[in-house]
Amino acid sequence: MNKLAMIAFGGNALLRAGQKGTFDEQLENVERTCQQLVPLIEKGYDIVIGHGNGPQVGNALLRHEAGKKMFDMPAMPMDFCGAETQGSIAYLIETALERVLNRAGIHRRIVSLVTRVEVAADDPAFQNPTKPVGPYYKEKPQDGATYKEDPRGLGWRKVVASPKPIDVHNIDLIEKMAREGSIVITVGGGGIPVIKKPDGYRGIEAVIDKDLASTLCAIQMKADEFYILTDVAKVYINFRKPGEMALDAITVAEAERYLAEGQFAEGSMAPKVRAGILFVKNGGAQCVITEAGQLGNPACGTRIIP
Amino acid sequence: MNKLAMIAFGGNALLRAGQKGTFDEQLENVERTCQQLVPLIEKGYDIVIGHGNGPQVGNALLRHEAGKKMFDMPAMPMDFCGAETQGSIAYLIETALERVLNRAGIHRRIVSLVTRVEVAADDPAFQNPTKPVGPYYKEKPQDGATYKEDPRGLGWRKVVASPKPIDVHNIDLIEKMAREGSIVITVGGGGIPVIKKPDGYRGIEAVIDKDLASTLCAIQMKADEFYILTDVAKVYINFRKPGEMALDAITVAEAERYLAEGQFAEGSMAPKVRAGILFVKNGGAQCVITEAGQLGNPACGTRIIP
Repeated sequence: MNKLAMIAFGGNALLRAGQKGTFDEQLENVERTCQQLVPLIEKGYDIVIGHGNGPQVGNALLRHEAGKKMFDMPAMPMDFCGAETQGSIAYLIETALERVLNRAGIHRRIVSLVTRVEVAADDPAFQNPTKPVGPYYKEKPQDGATYKEDPRGLGWRKVVASPKPIDVHNIDLIEKMAREGSIVITVGGGGIPVIKKPDGYRGIEAVIDKDLASTLCAIQMKADEFYILTDVAKVYINFRKPGEMALDAITVAEAERYLAEGQFAEGSMAPKVRAGILFVKNGGAQCVITEAGQLGNPACGTRIIP
Repeated sequence: MNKLAMIAFGGNALLRAGQKGTFDEQLENVERTCQQLVPLIEKGYDIVIGHGNGPQVGNALLRHEAGKKMFDMPAMPMDFCGAETQGSIAYLIETALERVLNRAGIHRRIVSLVTRVEVAADDPAFQNPTKPVGPYYKEKPQDGATYKEDPRGLGWRKVVASPKPIDVHNIDLIEKMAREGSIVITVGGGGIPVIKKPDGYRGIEAVIDKDLASTLCAIQMKADEFYILTDVAKVYINFRKPGEMALDAITVAEAERYLAEGQFAEGSMAPKVRAGILFVKNGGAQCVITEAGQLGNPACGTRIIP
């Protein structure tokens, strides 16, 4: 059986700092990232790709707001906007990856799924929403949602919870398709967050961390390896301080110790390291945190191992 | 082997006249349509669902325009917007259908695919774009696209081609998943239109007729039956004229004769009848044109047979 790798595309796979995010810019960025997957694909890995949607869903929420103001169209909820970005980003990745594979003479099917991810209705995160989303308002909207005032005086902004993913819908099918050779694009933006109701699942306004969603996907399908693509080649300790050191390979125990020491920035490297630990603790052989351009290099990135 | 049915949801499966199209309205509409699929599903049919996106992609284009004006964000091209609607509408259908199945005690997997559909770069439709899309502009934009002035004085509006679909991407996988019991949602809005380039497929600004895309999907996977859901129970001849008659079953030859007589309105029933003829001529057992509410009725709709 081929090795199964889960790959989490970082935000800059699609949008780079300073870009407006036109279609051509995004397609070019994705193509550059996809190009780096070729070595893994040539080694015969089965592959599932997860991706973020931060800037894209932010833009979607602004577009819905603008559409409401200019054309009196309903602004749709966040789960709907997330589903929109799953469609559009998967289309970009599919287009770019296919070109890359064609140029490399590789024939692999690419399949893009719209994917819901379950979270618990009683997840404590719902008691303390922290993730700012959507436009700024001059006045605090009275619509029942939670808003926080921006300390820089930009106005009020909705904050939503970032609950833990507990089940990737259709995960058995995702695994099966990947095992049969398809490259599967799924859990876009961390998945469309849904909670269980008596008669089915209902979307909620929340943001699932995309690395955590990809981790869960990797664990549920018993992936062998998990690649978290980011914008640095390796994870550092004592980052930008005396004793700065790039990490080549660390055990779960070492990673936990560094985390406890506060070596990794919250909102940046810390959640990625936690995702890697979670994956390896649940049976994964290794989690590699690196930048896409390093993937062809056998000593690439920082490996978290058992 | 179970019978395989392709079902094309009509526009009013999602949005009804007079509605603004809020999330709850659209979900309720879809749920009502999905409820009508229960008899087919209980009979053990394998099922693939195609759907339109007319009002939704129209709204998406307006939102992109509004976002450009209000927030200086790039307005994305039509294929990108179509991909967005595939994500969001599939999410709505998946949510609604799952609820309906749960209530009926039926356990079937539902899978939503982002689907590209190939058209020919030399399709004659590209020489004569006819399909108006997006916002009205006071001045004719000078961006290389084709614009036509609205005869009512509303302004200039982009017109795009409506080329014929020639290949549904991943059709073999769609068929396989449906044959294995999954209900597959695909070819949303007629599919994301792409043309073949030397290194892969590239999206284009065009609209593929959703009934034609569903027809091609049905033909390519050798579906047994094809259901085109619309807002009338049956197809009529001499509609609203002396001799008006609802048709129960017509042969392909009869359907072609009525078409030649101009019995069916262009832009309304004529393309549906043509789609049905195409399906049956290519080996389908029957195409049923009807409203969703009639599906439980064995004598429902107008059947086109060989």
